[in-house]
Amino acid sequence: MSKIVSGFSKLTKEQKIDWLAKNYFENQPEIIKTIKQYWNVDEKLQQLHDDFIENTISNFYMPYGVAPNFVINGREYVIPMVVEESSVVAAASLVGKFWSTRGGFKTQVISTTKIGQVHFIYAGNKNSLQDYFTKNKTELRSATASITKNMEKRGGGILDIELIDKTNQLDNYYQLHVTFETKDSMGANFINSCLEAIARKFQKDDIEIVMSILSNYVPECLVRAEVSCKVEELGGKNPEKFAQKFEQAVKIAEIEPYRAVTHNKGIMNGIDAVVLATGNDFRAIEAGAHAYASRNGKYSSLTHCEIKDGVFRFWIELPLALGTVGGLTALHPMAKLSLDMMQKPSARTLMQIIAAAGLAQNFGALRALTTKGIQHGHMKMHLMNILNQHHATEQEKEEVTHYFEGRTVSHSAVVEKLNSMRKPAINWVDFSDNIKIKESLSKLPAKAKPLFGKMKGQQMVEHLSTVTQIANGNWKVDSYVSEEKQARRRPYLNTDGELQVGFKAPFLSEDPTPLKFKSMDEAIEDLINQVNHFTKVFTEDKNRIVVHPFFGELDYDFWKKFQVKHFTHHFKQFGLV
Amino acid sequence: MSKIVSGFSKLTKEQKIDWLAKNYFENQPEIIKTIKQYWNVDEKLQQLHDDFIENTISNFYMPYGVAPNFVINGREYVIPMVVEESSVVAAASLVGKFWSTRGGFKTQVISTTKIGQVHFIYAGNKNSLQDYFTKNKTELRSATASITKNMEKRGGGILDIELIDKTNQLDNYYQLHVTFETKDSMGANFINSCLEAIARKFQKDDIEIVMSILSNYVPECLVRAEVSCKVEELGGKNPEKFAQKFEQAVKIAEIEPYRAVTHNKGIMNGIDAVVLATGNDFRAIEAGAHAYASRNGKYSSLTHCEIKDGVFRFWIELPLALGTVGGLTALHPMAKLSLDMMQKPSARTLMQIIAAAGLAQNFGALRALTTKGIQHGHMKMHLMNILNQHHATEQEKEEVTHYFEGRTVSHSAVVEKLNSMRKPAINWVDFSDNIKIKESLSKLPAKAKPLFGKMKGQQMVEHLSTVTQIANGNWKVDSYVSEEKQARRRPYLNTDGELQVGFKAPFLSEDPTPLKFKSMDEAIEDLINQVNHFTKVFTEDKNRIVVHPFFGELDYDFWKKFQVKHFTHHFKQFGLV
Repeated sequence: MSKIVSGFSKLTKEQKIDWLAKNYFENQPEIIKTIKQYWNVDEKLQQLHDDFIENTISNFYMPYGVAPNFVINGREYVIPMVVEESSVVAAASLVGKFWSTRGGFKTQVISTTKIGQVHFIYAGNKNSLQDYFTKNKTELRSATASITKNMEKRGGGILDIELIDKTNQLDNYYQLHVTFETKDSMGANFINSCLEAIARKFQKDDIEIVMSILSNYVPECLVRAEVSCKVEELGGKNPEKFAQKFEQAVKIAEIEPYRAVTHNKGIMNGIDAVVLATGNDFRAIEAGAHAYASRNGKYSSLTHCEIKDGVFRFWIELPLALGTVGGLTALHPMAKLSLDMMQKPSARTLMQIIAAAGLAQNFGALRALTTKGIQHGHMKMHLMNILNQHHATEQEKEEVTHYFEGRTVSHSAVVEKLNSMRKPAINWVDFSDNIKIKESLSKLPAKAKPLFGKMKGQQMVEHLSTVTQIANGNWKVDSYVSEEKQARRRPYLNTDGELQVGFKAPFLSEDPTPLKFKSMDEAIEDLINQVNHFTKVFTEDKNRIVVHPFFGELDYDFWKKFQVKHFTHHFKQFGLV
Repeated sequence: MSKIVSGFSKLTKEQKIDWLAKNYFENQPEIIKTIKQYWNVDEKLQQLHDDFIENTISNFYMPYGVAPNFVINGREYVIPMVVEESSVVAAASLVGKFWSTRGGFKTQVISTTKIGQVHFIYAGNKNSLQDYFTKNKTELRSATASITKNMEKRGGGILDIELIDKTNQLDNYYQLHVTFETKDSMGANFINSCLEAIARKFQKDDIEIVMSILSNYVPECLVRAEVSCKVEELGGKNPEKFAQKFEQAVKIAEIEPYRAVTHNKGIMNGIDAVVLATGNDFRAIEAGAHAYASRNGKYSSLTHCEIKDGVFRFWIELPLALGTVGGLTALHPMAKLSLDMMQKPSARTLMQIIAAAGLAQNFGALRALTTKGIQHGHMKMHLMNILNQHHATEQEKEEVTHYFEGRTVSHSAVVEKLNSMRKPAINWVDFSDNIKIKESLSKLPAKAKPLFGKMKGQQMVEHLSTVTQIANGNWKVDSYVSEEKQARRRPYLNTDGELQVGFKAPFLSEDPTPLKFKSMDEAIEDLINQVNHFTKVFTEDKNRIVVHPFFGELDYDFWKKFQVKHFTHHFKQFGLV
């Protein structure tokens, strides 16, 4: 049955979910429950969020955290961060505080020019085109009057329109390259509307407009943030060494693209978190930043470091086209709250705060990388995530966290530890307690069926006796276990591990051996006698060693450990413990 | 008072919010309400989300939408998308459906190799270093045994370790370049743990490890997606023309970085939406994709287009390092749901789905850009956002949407339209209704204070009389209003606009003139007489024109319109209407 659907967007939210459940979830009711458990209980608020985009069925929670203690140009800030990756907010908070006592972040906006282009094809005479452009330049601006009216009131608008000849790269390809100042708005809609109006005016028979669109490459919408202090003020055991290694790490990111990409990725962890929290568009910011990082023909670091005259200086320079009005900034209540938290910044101020957040993130990452390694801190959070995933209790979390101090965290290691803690205590069977052994076994019918394996009740009792007789020397088994195998197998007897279900000692025949005694009672009596004899022979000869067919040469101590495991294993086989 | 805080991370969530409210929100109670209204009512579920990162105080809702109708390698998919930008999901759905009837998306994984590096400084002899590396290569791998054990079970692990000499770019700088296969996990923790173990083993007196870290630049973890059909199957009025313009738009993005950045940004709209929905790390994906776009020394398009032998072909090739196990993929219930929705894909399958989503997004954007422009569709959603922001009712939404069909949407235009609809109907005063006028004014004390302006009650009544007398010819005002000003001002009398509060006609003296009558009653009587006279003189002489000191030459019709506005204005001044 085809799942291609028509008119899906016109279905109600409930109908969309029903369609999904039916076509892609085999109608599992839990699916619908999961989707709806994320709906806000306030229907009007939920409707607001539903209308942001199309075909919404629920909300995707992104964690909203805050990093206090940022001092930027002498002013204190708490920075809101929306990010799903652990350690990002923790690093920002730590680094914010670190620099708050060392002069804080110094930031400045270098420029705020934004760019849009009308791309067109023209096969005619170049001079005629230039003339046409020059004559109509004023008209092109006027064509945007109704759109630019309000922007101009706020001090923004179109800065310039240029005609650019690109025919040396693509046949007949030209651009109108338009520069804008958009003040506190990111300006995407404004720029695109202006460009489309300009294109409509510019178009004529021999000019074919291909498209009119803003550019997310904004190398002239640039901001800079810096931290600096005397090297000795960096603190730690050896601040000179720290500064030098830190600088080396930055230099590596400057020359090595494989490193630069990750280096900048870390910067963007901090930047995107604030971009998201303020309702800005992180894809635009990402594209602009990475393109800027590659502007010199080789992908390189966005941050730089210098140690000169005993002063450590670390800075970032990157393009950030942001808005503090328009778009989601006022529409999303948490985006608005983020801006309020930062004291309603202008777009220029927000550029500076975000640049500082990016620089802080990079400082934190490089400090961790060049000292104790990135995994140390990261793994602590990773550990917490694994514990949550396995629904660990608070007590389990505490115990496991303690256990992994100084140990390598891996998903499997954590799960193993957790499972070992959760394993019910094993009721080890005391094979030498005649009364209890008799009590347990006498309840068992001779033909009782096992929970695993093939033996029946009495066969199992006789089997325990047989193996005890090996230890006692009554039953000679001509077995040899190599030194190497012994060395590998024997230590298991020192652990609290149980004998594995399904394990079959190689010296046992495939089928259970025929019964030796006429009744269960007789078999039990025999077993108890053999156990008593076992104690006797080993206590009489402290140096007695008997070869076990699987574990090899065992002394009394090892034999006892084996007997406990072996009895427990077979008692479990019949649900006796 | 300093806002620098210690031990913030150790405060409870409630305490953190209190601190924020006190230090950055002047204790506004609405702030706390906003933060808490986004908490999930299920405390355990909320705790899970709180633990993802540090210092969490709430959830940031990202809209979760779905794009049905994707056919990828013959299989039908509905694609979950988390994105705050309007039009992205709508475009994906439309394009998904478009290609579903033209063979769907054809995708393939080209390679899945991931990369990590140990960066180190070594000043000694190069050959000795090479020898040391060669001799210890096996040991370096063994050092990761406990970490790689489980990965190897799944068919992954370390592929190779190489020693790379980078000393020609930075003094004494070398790398261990390690390649990995991480199967269904993104592998960041795995790779970093391996690298740190390798570094610990490799380190010696003359080898200083700077850092050990994975690379987000993964040009060998590559996927390709393609759509193609005969040109005439593209549909529309002129498929040849469409194909040709589309191809031109792609070619432009290939050669022009300003365009390429935005072109790729649009691709990432689609890609990041699925990356987010599946709990993957979009910063890693962004960094890898944009670095790949700049790999040839000039930032360029990630998609390509070809028209050959009547066939239109459009494809993307980009690196995507993704996970479908580990990280948030299973931990975030909505991320898990996303994976379930796509039938629990392997990382390889997810790479292909996401590449298709990116290609679809680019197809949609270029189709809109090269035909009716991007703003058309975008503005429809933008309009809805503005309407929501201003709490428009369903009826208002319908009316405004209808109004803006064929009009340019701008924030101010929408607000203006909405306000005009919401403006309460004006209770125009019928100045010629003697009975009502007398009834209204007789309630007003002579010394009544105005709601705006300076006149007292009786002064206002006498002022209305004075202006009426200008029309009547009793009061000659030697005023001249230029043709040009008349032409600009007079049309306002035809609108339903009111006279502006605070407007002061230039012929009026700064202070109210002294009273003419002894009582309010006399003043009212006089006004009514003048109004009656006004009607008389204008009906007796149909061609009568009298100069109004502000609006210029007015006939009876214009004077009546002025009188209505003027009476209404002053009645409002005293709250009479």
